[in-house]
Amino acid sequence: MIRNTCTLTLLILLGILNGSAQNQKGITHSGQKTGQTPYPATIYTELPNPVATDLKAWEGIQENKVSWGSTDIRYKKEVPMPQDHFQPTIHLRAWRGERVSAQWVVSASEDPVKLAYSVSDLVHQKDSRHKISQQHILSGFVRYVLTDELNKDGKGACGHRDNTDFDSTLVADAIDHITTELTIPGNSTRPGWIRVWVPEDAHPGKYKGTVTIYDNGQLMKELTLTLDVSAQKLPKPRHWKFHLDLWQNPYAVARYYNVTPWSDEHFEFLRQDMKHYADAGGNVITASITHKPWNAQTHDYFESMVTWMKKADGTWYFDYTIFDRWVEFMMDLGVTKQINCYSMIPWRLSFQYYDQATNQLRFIETQPGEPEYEDLWGSMLTSFATHLKKKGWFEKTFIAMDERPMEAMQKTLKVIRKADKNFKISLAGNLHPELLQDIDDYCISYGQSFTPEMKEQRRKAGQISTYYTSCSHPYPNTFTFSPPAQSEWLAWHAASENLDGFLRWAYNSWVLEPLLDSRFRTWAAGDTYFVYPGGRTSMRMERLVEGIQQFEKINLLKKEFEKQNNQQGLQKLEKMLKTFSDLDPQQRTTAAVIHAADQVLWNLSK
Amino acid sequence: MIRNTCTLTLLILLGILNGSAQNQKGITHSGQKTGQTPYPATIYTELPNPVATDLKAWEGIQENKVSWGSTDIRYKKEVPMPQDHFQPTIHLRAWRGERVSAQWVVSASEDPVKLAYSVSDLVHQKDSRHKISQQHILSGFVRYVLTDELNKDGKGACGHRDNTDFDSTLVADAIDHITTELTIPGNSTRPGWIRVWVPEDAHPGKYKGTVTIYDNGQLMKELTLTLDVSAQKLPKPRHWKFHLDLWQNPYAVARYYNVTPWSDEHFEFLRQDMKHYADAGGNVITASITHKPWNAQTHDYFESMVTWMKKADGTWYFDYTIFDRWVEFMMDLGVTKQINCYSMIPWRLSFQYYDQATNQLRFIETQPGEPEYEDLWGSMLTSFATHLKKKGWFEKTFIAMDERPMEAMQKTLKVIRKADKNFKISLAGNLHPELLQDIDDYCISYGQSFTPEMKEQRRKAGQISTYYTSCSHPYPNTFTFSPPAQSEWLAWHAASENLDGFLRWAYNSWVLEPLLDSRFRTWAAGDTYFVYPGGRTSMRMERLVEGIQQFEKINLLKKEFEKQNNQQGLQKLEKMLKTFSDLDPQQRTTAAVIHAADQVLWNLSK
Repeated sequence: MIRNTCTLTLLILLGILNGSAQNQKGITHSGQKTGQTPYPATIYTELPNPVATDLKAWEGIQENKVSWGSTDIRYKKEVPMPQDHFQPTIHLRAWRGERVSAQWVVSASEDPVKLAYSVSDLVHQKDSRHKISQQHILSGFVRYVLTDELNKDGKGACGHRDNTDFDSTLVADAIDHITTELTIPGNSTRPGWIRVWVPEDAHPGKYKGTVTIYDNGQLMKELTLTLDVSAQKLPKPRHWKFHLDLWQNPYAVARYYNVTPWSDEHFEFLRQDMKHYADAGGNVITASITHKPWNAQTHDYFESMVTWMKKADGTWYFDYTIFDRWVEFMMDLGVTKQINCYSMIPWRLSFQYYDQATNQLRFIETQPGEPEYEDLWGSMLTSFATHLKKKGWFEKTFIAMDERPMEAMQKTLKVIRKADKNFKISLAGNLHPELLQDIDDYCISYGQSFTPEMKEQRRKAGQISTYYTSCSHPYPNTFTFSPPAQSEWLAWHAASENLDGFLRWAYNSWVLEPLLDSRFRTWAAGDTYFVYPGGRTSMRMERLVEGIQQFEKINLLKKEFEKQNNQQGLQKLEKMLKTFSDLDPQQRTTAAVIHAADQVLWNLSK
Repeated sequence: MIRNTCTLTLLILLGILNGSAQNQKGITHSGQKTGQTPYPATIYTELPNPVATDLKAWEGIQENKVSWGSTDIRYKKEVPMPQDHFQPTIHLRAWRGERVSAQWVVSASEDPVKLAYSVSDLVHQKDSRHKISQQHILSGFVRYVLTDELNKDGKGACGHRDNTDFDSTLVADAIDHITTELTIPGNSTRPGWIRVWVPEDAHPGKYKGTVTIYDNGQLMKELTLTLDVSAQKLPKPRHWKFHLDLWQNPYAVARYYNVTPWSDEHFEFLRQDMKHYADAGGNVITASITHKPWNAQTHDYFESMVTWMKKADGTWYFDYTIFDRWVEFMMDLGVTKQINCYSMIPWRLSFQYYDQATNQLRFIETQPGEPEYEDLWGSMLTSFATHLKKKGWFEKTFIAMDERPMEAMQKTLKVIRKADKNFKISLAGNLHPELLQDIDDYCISYGQSFTPEMKEQRRKAGQISTYYTSCSHPYPNTFTFSPPAQSEWLAWHAASENLDGFLRWAYNSWVLEPLLDSRFRTWAAGDTYFVYPGGRTSMRMERLVEGIQQFEKINLLKKEFEKQNNQQGLQKLEKMLKTFSDLDPQQRTTAAVIHAADQVLWNLSK
């Protein structure tokens, strides 16, 4: 990593200081317009590497190197693969219906490489009529994006950031399935990704295929991939039990592509960008029912999906056109379980509405406990409940809160209950035993714990108990510089702790130019998004899904073993899960621990 | 009048230059806050007189003078009544149901006068059981307001104004019925006003009463008023035939009193301020159906009384809550005949709407002839027609246009007809023979003429033909410096020209501080309003009503004479009306001509 002065120099070289760039609306750090017209760009140019290449390290590299790598590693652009590393074949294993990934790496020696690749079908080793065809395989270059680091004390990543205070590096994260050819300079490294989504009806057994790497159309290397497909079957993501709640921000999508919110074009882009969430078994639709529920903490603030109009005769009028379209769209994608509505107690207690009398957008400043608050929300929730029942969504709609002072939360609950006593409630915040019964979907911070009795009682009552990580957790986390294994670890942890799932507050709250620079004005880089524009997934997103798959597999095996009264199997599962809580917090999130657990699971699932 | 340098000095003395005052929101030229909290102020202080008092003129005035004056004269504050003028008694005459006015004047000699007055009942001279009690009498001080003058060429009063380019004087205009005591400095003049509204059931004959003037509680003078009440009867204003259309601006009222538009308080203030229009027989309710139909030409622009919402699914939603409340309120006041809706072709072809998708107020720039315009207005007018029919108002609602290029008007007509072929249309503009049949309420500029055939044909078709004056007419007009007789003349002219009525574009488009300074950033002072805040009428408004009463009386007498086949009476009426058109334009508007005509009318009505 470079020192701050270098970062500053880089930014000056780029010609645009970050601060001033954010002031020039629509101009990115790279000087490109946000959204990079015409979109989607098949080719985009990464930012220059702030880290100088240590040419000495490359001295021994006589020829271009191509090899399989590890999906646990973010290969550095400026560092060659170890001289002695060469792995021409990789062995993967999967259940039917499961997704598994591998990473290949190219280090160019002195001359630039005009890199391209092709992927073959995977062919069953015993019966070549059985194939996993290319349509089930996602492949792409792994792309470098600017990142930063934890706070200087290493204890977290919260707070406002001046980029010049932090080291900036390029980090491999985005998986770019769009770009088909990429010129990589001499003395630099470039990884590629391959993900196989085994069809549910695949014939079990060993498959084999190849990834072929080309330089300027000439064969560089053929890498072999074998895949051991188990007879076990993972159902489709929409049937998964893991409760995944990554908050979606459709407004970032509209801004990035420069399209009118809720236009047909917007939905087209949403379809590609929300797909990874649906494919991850995302359960919860994020709905903003007020203007700026989080007071514009993200680059693109959330608008209200409900139209609030105070009519000139003093009555309230609510319109749900946007809310309906968004919910229907997400359900159509496969996210059908739950709708979380933000927020009755936003961070700034100021509620915007369209005021008919003055033809203006105005604000009411009021808070739980005040008659004006009760009037306002009483009217809204009564209308909302009626609408939801008409749509058949009342049972899956949750009035969602972030952590607020206890008194405010309790007063808010009263207003909700008064409007409709059956409204469901969700809270992402601290563990408050006095709210346990009221909160149907309760998500607490990593580091806090429900007691086993609480979890049992809640599960019996049909209530959901999950956890989240945020900027306050240096690890495990999903920053662009976090080890990829930590993304997978998140669901292992849920399984180990008997929790229902995981929440993170930002699936795609993109920064100004998310493909180029994942840093933001607050928190560590990557805190605000998992996926990249153009429907591009990421190492973090893919590893997160792998973890969720493990969670599902554990649950399915448990059920199977219980059915079979296979006490040995159950004990093995239990013991494997216990390794996570037995280790100290930093150790338990390592790739080694995960691989060991994965091996146990694989052995049990044969 | 003073020269420009003096005006400038005055403004500097006041401490606030006009231009900068307008920039300081809510601060008037006098440094007072607009709306003068607490409202209504029983006492307000006029601006200093820009004209120095000529002390020589006051040298001969040995004692305070009190006398009846003439309602044709705006008595100057700094000028004494003529030394030899003293009129202790005034003789008025009226039909039953008619309003008649008189003006009294006090010139204080050396010492200030703490002026107050009282008005007695008017008592029937022959039978003292018959009285016209004080509840039928309006009285008040005539107040001085800052005015300017015509353009330098004397040919009109249009265009942007820098106040320093024009002479500024105080002029008597507002009739302040609220202030009960007023200290007038030595060597200054102060008029008072009295208006008797003869009850419809008054006993005909001669009445007598007094106005008593006090200084510091001590009797100064008792003035006598006699009133000859004819047996003829004028119906209530709402039954008058004269088509009066003064454009009301409810938004100026909300701003002046600093109340929320369309709140109960707003309607309370509107009730007092719109009353003079209803009492003048105002026929037309001014309704703004778009945002800024006149592109903010007035101090307070017109908002849309119709809520335009473009929903996220692309459909239009219209809400008529404000429109309904305003129309119902005005109808309740007595203005029931017609609703004129502005404007499908506003001065700036830019239509504002609330955009649900972006939660913003946005604009569509489109013009007649474009498909977007047709879509927009087609949707609106179809919805509007449905709503109006439901309310029972369709027959009295007019889609109103100002003068626009012929092609635009014709294209607009097409769109209206397509939405509902029975929509009524009004136009205030030039005379276009090709539009005669289409325009149901056609108002042309003073100086242009419908042919007698046109008027006849239009009247047969139930169509209205009127005229207007504007800044382009140096006289006759209703600026605060215009001779008061010109206000009365307006309806005489309509009678003489066989027109149905009169339109002026601003009943109460108040300037920043209308009680203090009638000047505006465009046009001559007073162009933008007839009445003053606090429900205060004006010399102009009262004289306008007197003219309309004459119009009504002429029509009633005509009908009576026709019924009686009184050819002599009809000829006398005809001859009297002809005097107006026989004289040259400047002469015909004088008080003398009006008084002569009034005498003829009185003789005919006995």
